[in-house]
Amino acid sequence: MHTALCDELGIEFPIFAFTHCRDVVVAVSKAGGFGVLGAVGFTPEQLEIELKWIDENIGDHPYGVDIVIPNKYEGMDANMSTDELTKMLQSMVPQQHLDFAKKLLADHGVPVDDADNNALQLLGWTEATATPQVEIALTHPKVKLIANALGTPPADMIKHIHDSGRKVAALCGSPAQALKHAEADVDIIIAQGGEGGGHCGEVGSIVLWPQVVKAVAPRPVLAAGGIGSGYQIAAALALGCQGAWSGSQWLMVEEAENTPVQQAAYVKASSRDTVRSRSFTGKPCRMLKNDWTEAWQAEGNPEPLGMPLQYMVSGMAVAATSKYPNETVDVAFNPVGQVVGQFSKVEKTAAVIERWVQEYLESTSRLEELNASV
Amino acid sequence: MHTALCDELGIEFPIFAFTHCRDVVVAVSKAGGFGVLGAVGFTPEQLEIELKWIDENIGDHPYGVDIVIPNKYEGMDANMSTDELTKMLQSMVPQQHLDFAKKLLADHGVPVDDADNNALQLLGWTEATATPQVEIALTHPKVKLIANALGTPPADMIKHIHDSGRKVAALCGSPAQALKHAEADVDIIIAQGGEGGGHCGEVGSIVLWPQVVKAVAPRPVLAAGGIGSGYQIAAALALGCQGAWSGSQWLMVEEAENTPVQQAAYVKASSRDTVRSRSFTGKPCRMLKNDWTEAWQAEGNPEPLGMPLQYMVSGMAVAATSKYPNETVDVAFNPVGQVVGQFSKVEKTAAVIERWVQEYLESTSRLEELNASV
Repeated sequence: MHTALCDELGIEFPIFAFTHCRDVVVAVSKAGGFGVLGAVGFTPEQLEIELKWIDENIGDHPYGVDIVIPNKYEGMDANMSTDELTKMLQSMVPQQHLDFAKKLLADHGVPVDDADNNALQLLGWTEATATPQVEIALTHPKVKLIANALGTPPADMIKHIHDSGRKVAALCGSPAQALKHAEADVDIIIAQGGEGGGHCGEVGSIVLWPQVVKAVAPRPVLAAGGIGSGYQIAAALALGCQGAWSGSQWLMVEEAENTPVQQAAYVKASSRDTVRSRSFTGKPCRMLKNDWTEAWQAEGNPEPLGMPLQYMVSGMAVAATSKYPNETVDVAFNPVGQVVGQFSKVEKTAAVIERWVQEYLESTSRLEELNASV
Repeated sequence: MHTALCDELGIEFPIFAFTHCRDVVVAVSKAGGFGVLGAVGFTPEQLEIELKWIDENIGDHPYGVDIVIPNKYEGMDANMSTDELTKMLQSMVPQQHLDFAKKLLADHGVPVDDADNNALQLLGWTEATATPQVEIALTHPKVKLIANALGTPPADMIKHIHDSGRKVAALCGSPAQALKHAEADVDIIIAQGGEGGGHCGEVGSIVLWPQVVKAVAPRPVLAAGGIGSGYQIAAALALGCQGAWSGSQWLMVEEAENTPVQQAAYVKASSRDTVRSRSFTGKPCRMLKNDWTEAWQAEGNPEPLGMPLQYMVSGMAVAATSKYPNETVDVAFNPVGQVVGQFSKVEKTAAVIERWVQEYLESTSRLEELNASV
């Protein structure tokens, strides 16, 4: 599965692993893939600590950092400080929504204290908060890629990243978005089908991937949404992609911070147990269906706000549930794709990469034999 | 792309083409694929005429017939005649729904006459109406496959088809449904992802296909939902399927009965312009978004009834719009999958098959080169 993109980035396999755990980043890159650290939720200071740790443990391997810069929000001034921004957004949240969320948590035995409620709930979800993350990332020479999970990064940021010798990647859910990325000179387009965990559109991967490949050719495209085996990577490469971008699988490795209770919830779930819900971020985002997601779409209850306002409500839930990860899985934020239905056990990261490579070879060998037997 | 299943059916390529047009059935089978005539909507007498025509024109090639036998409906007696059944169902439809549908059609300049309203609206949508279709099909020796589009066929019907030397296929949208088919001794499992036109589930093809392959191995699986090129067939075979089941593409061939206005609507549509709607059949069914689908999901309007009751309402729309196909595309039933976004022109059926084979070879050659260059 070694494609041209592998040579450009100095990796063996075009397996891009999105994760919030530095240990997974290191394990993936050391196994021949490309680990990408999700920076949302880290202050610049925390991010610096994570990247320093990665640098010290990853050897000579490259890795990436994923940030979230959505399109501009209404009424937002680019010169506002993060504190001013948070204050302004907090003032826009209806009390009804906060009360509903607090009651939902209380009904599930999740205590909310004032610190959760006042927690800085915007870390990395806006240009104002993502820009310092990029600055930190660019001081780390082994960071070879900055990816944006939502929308086309601003032109000056793309130029800045290019000037520092790094590549820029961006996710998309339609050929039109892909073209916008390409016109802004994004180097690598990540086409994420509706199966994917986290923010995603409605068009399925089997339809989306080849459309994006065609729209931006010869720019390299990574396949996202439904990657959880080497068979699926073979399908992605058959459709013209140069590699695969995966997230869900890395919740299910020994190196991940997820607890056994969370991982058991993923093992139990079928592919029908996820839902595209606006209940955490305000934009459609695929996650495990649970009492929180059901409550926010039940008739008569408040409707989720837009992004980033909904996060001013759900941030409280995320802060409160993260303290009791084993007890609160029914109201916690569990982003995961439909591949969750494939998971049966927790593996070592290196074993996953090795398995995927073997499955890929099994797949492509079968195709070669079919062609040879004609 | 020649798989073991091709030898069992005596075909060159495992390309299964679902269509309501007998000309397309003939053209696909003559080009090396396997045409399948959708029998819904035909009386037994009409079906006999269609199959006789196919027999006379298809040469020595095999073909299939697709029927629709959903799970049992509440309150339905298997011994009821079609007329009794229709009468009973009509009595269960709220007047509000009929009035809403009539007004919607009138607002779009579509006249509804009493014949439309009283038209037999259940042709082939129940066991009572599908069974005679199967009996007719089994009198035609070139019919080698009976497929059921919705649910596991009744055990006695499967046995009857097997005894006559034919194979049985059935669609599914989850591994659990696939297992149910396999346990009932369905020979070929068609795994249809949420991208597909017509009735479909929510799980995307890239996730669903390998799960179904694994669940029913070594029983052959056909990939459905998102098949519109040889690249997508290569992906399906990479995921372990033995062939591909396609429907949307065959609306866009010269041999199809669709009018240029309808085909222009498909060319114009992107993959985001379809919707899973209950507004025609009562079950989630993917189709072009239009004024009819939007109206049935707008707040304050009647909600679609279940199957088959909703069809007692929409049947009137289908009958009325079919008389003016060019003027009524905005309220007509246009089932199509997300691959609609790939369509740019109308082709000859044989040219589509040839193109798909070439694309498949391009795809698999690229994979072979990648493996060879390591």
